[in-house]
Formats: sequence, C-alpha cells, structure tokens
Amino acid sequence: MVRYKAVIAYDGTNFHGFQKQPNGRTVQEEVEKTLQKMNNGEQITIYGSGRTDAGVHAMGQVIHFDYPQERPVERMRFGLDTQTPEDVAVRSVEIVSEDFHARYDVAEKTYHFKVQIEKPRSPFRRFYASYYPYPLDLEKIQQALPDLLGTHDFTSFCATGGSIEDKVRTIYQADMEVSSDGREITFIFRGNGFLYKMIRILVGTLLKIGNGRLPADSIPEIIALKDRNAAGPTAHPEGLYLAEVKYKN
Amino acid sequence: MVRYKAVIAYDGTNFHGFQKQPNGRTVQEEVEKTLQKMNNGEQITIYGSGRTDAGVHAMGQVIHFDYPQERPVERMRFGLDTQTPEDVAVRSVEIVSEDFHARYDVAEKTYHFKVQIEKPRSPFRRFYASYYPYPLDLEKIQQALPDLLGTHDFTSFCATGGSIEDKVRTIYQADMEVSSDGREITFIFRGNGFLYKMIRILVGTLLKIGNGRLPADSIPEIIALKDRNAAGPTAHPEGLYLAEVKYKN
Repeated sequence: MVRYKAVIAYDGTNFHGFQKQPNGRTVQEEVEKTLQKMNNGEQITIYGSGRTDAGVHAMGQVIHFDYPQERPVERMRFGLDTQTPEDVAVRSVEIVSEDFHARYDVAEKTYHFKVQIEKPRSPFRRFYASYYPYPLDLEKIQQALPDLLGTHDFTSFCATGGSIEDKVRTIYQADMEVSSDGREITFIFRGNGFLYKMIRILVGTLLKIGNGRLPADSIPEIIALKDRNAAGPTAHPEGLYLAEVKYKN
Repeated sequence: MVRYKAVIAYDGTNFHGFQKQPNGRTVQEEVEKTLQKMNNGEQITIYGSGRTDAGVHAMGQVIHFDYPQERPVERMRFGLDTQTPEDVAVRSVEIVSEDFHARYDVAEKTYHFKVQIEKPRSPFRRFYASYYPYPLDLEKIQQALPDLLGTHDFTSFCATGGSIEDKVRTIYQADMEVSSDGREITFIFRGNGFLYKMIRILVGTLLKIGNGRLPADSIPEIIALKDRNAAGPTAHPEGLYLAEVKYKN
C-alpha cells in the first residue's frame, strides 16, 4: 500500500458536507466512488483534515488514502480530477510516508469567510458569499480583530452540543480584506484548530460589532464569559471556505 | 400608464434564457410574475433590450414596462428586487417617457465573456466562465482583436438559420483583460448590436487563434469570406454576460 496526500477544492453548494452519511451527497462519497473505479472496483477510504458542513466550500481541503500501487502523482491527480464530478477539483497529489494522517497531523488551518456588502445583492454570489445588507463600520471590525489573536478558551464561539471538551485554541491570524471593487469583504482566520461553527460565530459577532450592536472592544469580555449567548449569531455557511491546511514537519 | 425602465442582473444558470417560452423557466416570466403580484393580479408585459440564451448571464440587462401608477422609483426597485427570485436582482429603476423602448432605442451594447484558463478547473467558476484547458498565446489574441473593430458584415460570426438579413454591425471596442491572479481572461465587446451567437463565435475564433490553430492575422479574411465555417467554434454560454446597454439621446 502506498499513502497519497491530495489537496482538493470543492463547491459545497450541492453537497451535504464533506463526511459520508446515509442520506445526501457528500464529497467523501464522490471521491471514494472515483477511487473505487480507478482501483478495479475495490473500495478505498479517504480521510479528510476535518469535516465541512453543508454549503461550506473548500479551496484547499487535504485528504489521505492508501492505494495498492505507486503511480506517477500527476497521472493520479489527473485521473482523480477528471473523473470526480465538476464540483470537485483535485489540485495536487503527492506520495507521503505511511504514518501521515490528514487529520491527526494538522498544524494549522486557514479559513476564509466572504461577505457580500453591495446593494442590491449580486445574483452571482448567492452561493459563494454570505450577504449582509445592513450598515457596517469596517473600522470597528478592524479594531476588534486583534483581540481574537492568541490562545484562548473559545467556548463562547463554539456551537453548543458538541462533544469536544477542550475548547482552547490558538489564532495566529485574524484579518479582513475589502475587495478592490468594495463589494465584498473577506475574513481570514488562521489557527491551530477551530471549534464546531467557530468561524461562522466569529463572523456573526464581528458583523454585529461592525453594525454597532456590540462595542468594538467587546471580544475580550465575550471570550471571558465562556457563554455561547454572549457572542453574535452564526453566519450562513455559503461564505465559508477551508482555504489551506498545513502539517507538522 | 407610466413607463418604467429597469436595469436587472441575473444568473442565467437556471434559466432557459430571457424570453418567455412554453416550457422552461425564464427571466421574463419571473419578472412578470412579480409585477403581476405588485399590480393586484393584473398582468404586465416587460420588454427586454434583447434575448439572452440559456445559461447566459446579465449584469446590466435593460427592460421597460408600463405600470398604472407613478410610484417612487426606489420603492419600485426595492419591491421588484426583493420579490423576484434570488437569481434575479433589480439594480435600478427610473421613469422614462412613454415612447422609450428597451429594444428599439438601443444605441450600444457591451458584452463580457469570461474564460477560465487555470488548471485544474476551479469548481467555483463552472457556471460563470467558459473553461479552456489548452495552451493559449495571449499575445496572438491581443494582436487579432483590433481587426474586429469598425463596421463589417459579420455573416461569418453569425449562427446559421437566423432570419435577420442585414448582418452589418459596428464594433467600437474589442479588448481582453487578464485577471490579477492570472486565472481568468475577460473579453469585452462593445458595439451597436450583435448577431445571434456572435460574441460566442468571436470568442471561439479568438481562442483558436490563441491556441495557434488559426493565424493571428486571419480575422480580416474570415470576415471577407462571409461564411460561418471560416470562423471558429461557438464558445459555451456560461462565460457570456450582457454587461451594459446604452440608449439613444
């Protein structure tokens, strides 16, 4: 068996998320079906760096899988890319050591979150950016972002009901960029890991700050409260992109 | 009756084109259904600057219609924008003179055509740009574009089977821009009118030139031949956008 690592992109619009499930089309299912075809009908399981929810996109999701033969990586990439459906692209493939694990070896993840702020809403962005039609003071958001940096217990920014007990995470980067035409803003979050729906709650909170319904300096207090109710609403999934995953070593 | 002019944008992916037809969802049908609701169930007919085919998008299609009352234009715009489906946006509304006609008074139209040239194909652009995976010499395309400018009989660039006899049109602008990330090129064509599928055949021909399968100086000869077979193939509809319509006066 040879272990392959692949970087894949997908449009999450028509997927019920990454992870295979009994009902609903998933990214894992489509990639595994393609690998099975390439492997003479024998099933192959893929492991992702983590799940993404329904409607969430990926520019750089990372998976690993074991395949019986060593094949030229560009041929493997091309075969996978052309045989997966059009809403999945296989960007790169490499052969890795047998102990590489796409999930357990993650060092850093980067997420982007796009918010459309133009009026009227562009019909072309409805699946690819969240829409925020209310007034936004971008200065206030810029002011709040650095308060997210560093190591904190992010319980306030985690959807309730999850099973993970340790909610301490480290955020290395928390930025916002405005598109050249001023129609869209992109949040960029890079950290050692993110809790369930954390990015979407961070964005919902930052938009509430930008809209003036929370003070610009409220992030430290929200973190300290360790209470989901202290933070803002969960932003919609269509703005979220898993942009990049980096590994140890 | 008060005549209104509106600028609308639409994502053509899920439409069988602009013009109403017995089978298939159309832009005209959706806008007319919305106007009918706003007009107490009385039907209102809209007139577009021209048709767009299935899968073709618009950033600036112009329509006109007659409505029994004079209403504040921003209220009319907001009502239409929020009640039309999410793949239609109403960008602006104004009251015009009773003899304004969205189709007959056109002075200039601008179309954009987007071609994705990155590898692998981005899953996010599959409905919004045509994909060209073959080598392209963009210099050759730049060299060929000025040959399209001016007044010509564009029979070679018109889909056969149409009923229009006069195929003389004037092109004022024929440009190509490369996106800042180099992943996409956009063709910009501005003229006094375009024949059926003309932009898509122009793009198919220019890509053939860029790929080296037609000489960079072949446009004048293709025009002179007045033969559809002399030009390149018809590019796919998903790259095409009606960008702007300008009117006389």
